[in-house]
Amino acid sequence: MSKGITSQKDNYATWYTDVIIKSGLADYGPVKGTMVIKPYGYELWENIKSALDKMLKDSGHVNAYFPLFIPKSFLASEAKHVEGFAKECAVVTHHRLRTTEDGQGVEVDPESKLEEEVIVRPTSETVIWAMYKKWIQSYRDLPLLINQWANVVRWEMRTRLFLRTTEFLWQEGHTAHETNEEAEQETLNILSFYQNLAEDYLAIPVLTGIKTDAEKFAGAEKTYSIEAMMGDKRALQAGTSHNLGQNFAKAFDVTFQDRENKEEFVFATSWGVSTRLVGGVVMAHGDDNGLVLPPKIAPIQVIIIPIAKTDADKETVMAHVNDIVSQCLKKGIRIKVDDSNNSPGFKFNEWELKGVPIRLEIGVRDVSNREVVLARRDSGHKQSVKLDKMLKSIQNLLDEIQKNILHKATDFRDKNTYKVKSYNEFKDIINKTGGFIRCGWDGSEETETAIKNETKATIRCIPFDSNPKGMKCVYSGKDALYEVIFAKAY
Amino acid sequence: MSKGITSQKDNYATWYTDVIIKSGLADYGPVKGTMVIKPYGYELWENIKSALDKMLKDSGHVNAYFPLFIPKSFLASEAKHVEGFAKECAVVTHHRLRTTEDGQGVEVDPESKLEEEVIVRPTSETVIWAMYKKWIQSYRDLPLLINQWANVVRWEMRTRLFLRTTEFLWQEGHTAHETNEEAEQETLNILSFYQNLAEDYLAIPVLTGIKTDAEKFAGAEKTYSIEAMMGDKRALQAGTSHNLGQNFAKAFDVTFQDRENKEEFVFATSWGVSTRLVGGVVMAHGDDNGLVLPPKIAPIQVIIIPIAKTDADKETVMAHVNDIVSQCLKKGIRIKVDDSNNSPGFKFNEWELKGVPIRLEIGVRDVSNREVVLARRDSGHKQSVKLDKMLKSIQNLLDEIQKNILHKATDFRDKNTYKVKSYNEFKDIINKTGGFIRCGWDGSEETETAIKNETKATIRCIPFDSNPKGMKCVYSGKDALYEVIFAKAY
Repeated sequence: MSKGITSQKDNYATWYTDVIIKSGLADYGPVKGTMVIKPYGYELWENIKSALDKMLKDSGHVNAYFPLFIPKSFLASEAKHVEGFAKECAVVTHHRLRTTEDGQGVEVDPESKLEEEVIVRPTSETVIWAMYKKWIQSYRDLPLLINQWANVVRWEMRTRLFLRTTEFLWQEGHTAHETNEEAEQETLNILSFYQNLAEDYLAIPVLTGIKTDAEKFAGAEKTYSIEAMMGDKRALQAGTSHNLGQNFAKAFDVTFQDRENKEEFVFATSWGVSTRLVGGVVMAHGDDNGLVLPPKIAPIQVIIIPIAKTDADKETVMAHVNDIVSQCLKKGIRIKVDDSNNSPGFKFNEWELKGVPIRLEIGVRDVSNREVVLARRDSGHKQSVKLDKMLKSIQNLLDEIQKNILHKATDFRDKNTYKVKSYNEFKDIINKTGGFIRCGWDGSEETETAIKNETKATIRCIPFDSNPKGMKCVYSGKDALYEVIFAKAY
Repeated sequence: MSKGITSQKDNYATWYTDVIIKSGLADYGPVKGTMVIKPYGYELWENIKSALDKMLKDSGHVNAYFPLFIPKSFLASEAKHVEGFAKECAVVTHHRLRTTEDGQGVEVDPESKLEEEVIVRPTSETVIWAMYKKWIQSYRDLPLLINQWANVVRWEMRTRLFLRTTEFLWQEGHTAHETNEEAEQETLNILSFYQNLAEDYLAIPVLTGIKTDAEKFAGAEKTYSIEAMMGDKRALQAGTSHNLGQNFAKAFDVTFQDRENKEEFVFATSWGVSTRLVGGVVMAHGDDNGLVLPPKIAPIQVIIIPIAKTDADKETVMAHVNDIVSQCLKKGIRIKVDDSNNSPGFKFNEWELKGVPIRLEIGVRDVSNREVVLARRDSGHKQSVKLDKMLKSIQNLLDEIQKNILHKATDFRDKNTYKVKSYNEFKDIINKTGGFIRCGWDGSEETETAIKNETKATIRCIPFDSNPKGMKCVYSGKDALYEVIFAKAY
């Protein structure tokens, strides 16, 4: 490839990393497992974040900030409930550096050893519940609908930008309620926000459903998720919403006085999406030429490439360009001009790589014809439009591209989703074709585990429209208890 | 005090903590030195943040995100340049927890010891400059105007909410430029943004000026700051902007090819404000009844207290209340109704404590008179306004309150700023009266240190309007080189 991007066919994983690095979304940090989110990637994340933040605020949620550091002992109550507990997390043991004797380096001051080690939050659940114990007394304090935007740390040996890094950014919601019904309603509301975010903003179609017991969060009663298909036909769990029942309230002894003056444990939910969504956008829409960004979240929606050979031409063209920019900015269109000295061809490549939805070309002839050329990143289609119709055309085109990207991704997913009746067919698809498999499952963990061990495919979810009537389990041949979605996943 | 708030006179520090805790801005976290920013405090921070973020973006700055973890070795190059280097920072030495043998607790897995310890960023300067080395090749890559909103950690033994906590939130800007002039211009532009933020949004008047060599950031050529006066007449350094010259570029070997094809070290700036600003807002405006929030950053600008004794009255009043709320929301006024079952008196106290700029009271009689009562938090003044003039009145009042709070704080500062000629007078003011002292300084570090040791007052800045002509040094009696501001500071 001219851009130095490995093609998807040759190596999907390398293609993924190439696109992220070359488009300027992110870079590797100096400590193994860490990532730098570069300005272009961070603006993409900011746009995703502000769409979700608005949904959360409009529905009565509030943001807060809890500490990065958690006492080691807080994790003990979790450990008691989880067999084979082992947490990959960063442990702080000292609190001071000093200069080495030769004055050339630094070393840990042994005298600064902490009495109790401190953990860098892998999630804030425990510290938040410790605070809730203090804040919640009565039903009047409920519901408590708190969200946090923060960085969290889970030590990783193998890094995959945006998908698997030691530190990542996310939001974590932690709510407390009077009744289980309310908690369940909250869990499902949030899931619908996540679906909305994925489909309407990221243009990624998602399946919604409930996780099996083996796949759900250990502390939850029920885990719901949104599941997306990536360009290599593997699944990406793009967001989860948990109904925690009274599990955390009991572990952290958080009770409230209910409307009948009875002491009761509160009901809880938790839910999160992370910068992993950025990886999802890359893999759901990207191609061998680079990123393809949905207009609603694209940092730049329109890139202008002025085309002029002489200084006089440049002056003529730039006068129009400045006018176009100010018209677009007034309408809230995120537009930018590439007036660097690079060749038009170089610029076309560059902004294609960066996935900008519309490229606007304007040269001297266009100026005299009072028109511009609009080129779509998603379809490659080019069209000339008159200057006086330009604004409307751009707005329509942005809408159309947003819809088309979602449409393409939905089509791709549907084409690669198979209703399967025999296990041979199942294995064929998982091992050779790839994709989602919709089939019957007898509901037993043995079947689930056997399939996972034999094929690496897991049950992504029991979709809400699961209809097992008359189906047999694809593995055991027994009557199916659920219709489920199997796939290999990230 | 009925609200359980210590009065400012009795103990200013306790008053400060009482107000923060009782108004719901923040709480203490479980690890010593950490703080929980509660929803009310976080929304205040979000409003401050979004005002500054807009100024930065409008002037061409972009946000990015750099890793929390820094290799220990990165701090060595800093250590070489700083005498008596000792960094209070969190040191990560292990990366895994495991269950204890009895299954009841957790412990650090000794096998997870890291080869090189990792530091939790006290600031991102080093990791950012390590990346800049990779990203900057030519003058075409400059200027690089990157900002980051992040959490940083500096281990603290004594905690003071918002002012001194082990972890705090801030923004840190790190820019790279072709010339020293450009870097200097950037440093001063940012200082003007900070001044704007403080005065126009936080309603805190600030002195702007340059730090003395003793007070400047060790890695900087020049440090500028904004300095505010708190309610106890002490100074708060509320933001700093550094011209780093080529110091960091040299330490991290960051060069670029300039327009004449010469290899040159880049010129740099860095600058930051933090959640300390929230503490500044509390101390600059608060009184014995609690917070007094400037309307522009107040999470709630108007609180409605419906006054009704019977259910029928309540219905009448609430119909009007809902109408008022929707009118205000349409105009972008942040309004909220307190329809809890608490008494009006309780509610008045509560929202006064929370510093909401306007309290809107409405009862049955008001409804029939088609009016409402507006009460100001800043002056306590109450007035009735007709319903059809209400919107305009609220908007005017919010503007007026914003101005009045700034005016009051400016008045207070000016009244407590003294031009001083003798050292006896100086000591009298610092030890008894408190306040800012404007006086001559001979420019020597000996004088600066002597005054600091004897009075605990430091030079806050050499203000831009410093005019030492004809002045003598207040301490040495020599000709003054600068007119400076001395004060005790946070």
